[in-house]
Amino acid sequence: MSQSFTPISSLGEFGLIDRMQSRLADIPRSENLIVGIGDDAAVYRAGDTKLHVVTTDVLIEGVHFDRTFIPTSYLGWKAIAVNVSDVVAMNAKPLYATVSAGLPRNFSVEMMDGLYDGMAEACKAYGMELVGGDTSTAHALYLSITVIGEVDEKDVVFRRGANVGDYLCLSGDVGGAYAGLKVLLDQREQLENMGDSYEPDLEAFQYVIRRQLRPKARLDVIEGLKKAGVRPTSMIDVSDGVASEVHHIGLRSGVGATVRVPAVPFDPETRAVADQFMDDVDAYALFGGEDYELLFTVAPEDVQAIDDMEGVSVIGTIEEAAKGVRAYSPDTGLMPLHPAGYQHFDGPPQTDYETNDGEEGPSFGDTEFSGDGA
Amino acid sequence: MSQSFTPISSLGEFGLIDRMQSRLADIPRSENLIVGIGDDAAVYRAGDTKLHVVTTDVLIEGVHFDRTFIPTSYLGWKAIAVNVSDVVAMNAKPLYATVSAGLPRNFSVEMMDGLYDGMAEACKAYGMELVGGDTSTAHALYLSITVIGEVDEKDVVFRRGANVGDYLCLSGDVGGAYAGLKVLLDQREQLENMGDSYEPDLEAFQYVIRRQLRPKARLDVIEGLKKAGVRPTSMIDVSDGVASEVHHIGLRSGVGATVRVPAVPFDPETRAVADQFMDDVDAYALFGGEDYELLFTVAPEDVQAIDDMEGVSVIGTIEEAAKGVRAYSPDTGLMPLHPAGYQHFDGPPQTDYETNDGEEGPSFGDTEFSGDGA
Repeated sequence: MSQSFTPISSLGEFGLIDRMQSRLADIPRSENLIVGIGDDAAVYRAGDTKLHVVTTDVLIEGVHFDRTFIPTSYLGWKAIAVNVSDVVAMNAKPLYATVSAGLPRNFSVEMMDGLYDGMAEACKAYGMELVGGDTSTAHALYLSITVIGEVDEKDVVFRRGANVGDYLCLSGDVGGAYAGLKVLLDQREQLENMGDSYEPDLEAFQYVIRRQLRPKARLDVIEGLKKAGVRPTSMIDVSDGVASEVHHIGLRSGVGATVRVPAVPFDPETRAVADQFMDDVDAYALFGGEDYELLFTVAPEDVQAIDDMEGVSVIGTIEEAAKGVRAYSPDTGLMPLHPAGYQHFDGPPQTDYETNDGEEGPSFGDTEFSGDGA
Repeated sequence: MSQSFTPISSLGEFGLIDRMQSRLADIPRSENLIVGIGDDAAVYRAGDTKLHVVTTDVLIEGVHFDRTFIPTSYLGWKAIAVNVSDVVAMNAKPLYATVSAGLPRNFSVEMMDGLYDGMAEACKAYGMELVGGDTSTAHALYLSITVIGEVDEKDVVFRRGANVGDYLCLSGDVGGAYAGLKVLLDQREQLENMGDSYEPDLEAFQYVIRRQLRPKARLDVIEGLKKAGVRPTSMIDVSDGVASEVHHIGLRSGVGATVRVPAVPFDPETRAVADQFMDDVDAYALFGGEDYELLFTVAPEDVQAIDDMEGVSVIGTIEEAAKGVRAYSPDTGLMPLHPAGYQHFDGPPQTDYETNDGEEGPSFGDTEFSGDGA
């Protein structure tokens, strides 16, 4: 019996998600499911006024991380944090996590201790519990985490919901995680070239390396917004880069947007890394992934409250869909802002870790299909 | 900086779980969490009268399955079904699933279609929805599924709860999945020895092969029990073999048990396989894993209702803890029944698929630590 073989990479990322969704299309839909595939997390009813949200993210050695860079305690932290970030992007509070771990044979008890210590630390930091899991031998280290969160029905925020005239806001600074990745990859290359005689210098770039290896989920930001009496009209977490996430909000909300490039904040260390590599720091800020900041929109009447909040920037405005997603800077004027910013770089940031094993065909990278697919 | 390297296999399965739990011990416990690690699924409050349950299970190529045996549609089905089985073991109804998939480069679009078709079919069969996921390239095929279910607080059944004098009951028949595995492994060996000239004969063993490759979660059994007005006092699904599961109920409930061996049902095809391999069919029935039947206890006043149910057998009685877990058969009389039945075989059934890659140290297999750890 012969079967045809179409490589998955031939579908492209959006094609892959469309294909998966089409295979699942005729599953009957429950009235308690508010949002399935298509946001940062799925949302369903749990009690009269409460909604629960659920999200899952996988981290695979050689695809998402290089074990020579990252202490296992950081990896455990990061695996929890990236999922919490998706929960927080629904304006929800994380409650419970489960962990599926595949451990390779060269993984020690000491490494496992670090991994679970990191997960425990993240659970404590975000006020949640690790309630179950499954652990198995595997070919390489992988971690698949699922986090369940809770939100009052009146407070839930989706990617859809941005209105023309709303302001586009961003927590923290961006581009740092990508800068950290650049530094780590560069150090790895130098180490490979120069061998043991090479002394890595990571002191100068502690902030950006930490942004890459130990990102924070911005639970504090949604708590701050609540305190300030602001409910965003739409929200998403910045896992694939600001430009990509603005497109997601635009697509789901049926709007366009203009991002004011000088208003997009980056850390001085991020600039230092970009300068060192002779890159454009704005490209890091707009297209670098894995910052896990929150990108959200607020109604005009709330913009004063946002201005009063520390660590949140207004970076643009929501416009008619016909105008598309644009970037404005004094140098270039108004320009279309493409989502796939990583084409400016030497590859998608999320697959930079990947080992080139000489097999044919590109990898298709990472496709979070609880999201819209980028 | 030197770090010690203790192989994980040195901990043993229970040691591994203890170690993981100890790293997580100081995470503060929420009052809404009813059961965390330590049952088939974690249980938490969701609304005034409803509880939610969550469980996660991972299937890894070369550890849990051999892709040359199993069509991807069966694999998709099985990945959902084994999780549903854990939900059902809490007397809960499955609602939502998320899927983390790692796909190797030699995985085609056609295989992916099969995988998602199988998952969709299982979702439809069990009345649930696939609400999110994350897909990535990986070194081998792996599937990590999380299923969330719901149960009225008054109906939830734990592993704890069996009382002295209760009857021990089992749905369906057991040993079949293990018999199917034996047949498949034997066919693989013959194929390796004889090459292309070998014609596999799988017709004679369709039932047991299906038990192995396409197991059913017994949602119908908990529906039947509800209809009959019976709420089990304790329940667990049979993933590691009847003997092992009786020990789990005993341990959690603080009781002993006697299993009447002649009362443990197996299919004639299971016997035929055991005969062919000159094995004891009772060993298949008591120690063979992956049948995903339900093992539960009922109060004496409910045993008549159980006798009236089709496809449910009374296989023993619950006794004082001091008596331990025992098996009775006319041939041997009363004997201690050990949980690790697979020591009678050539290896734990769940790791039989594993590729021997010549590296040092045994694998530690699969450790579901939402369960008690066997």
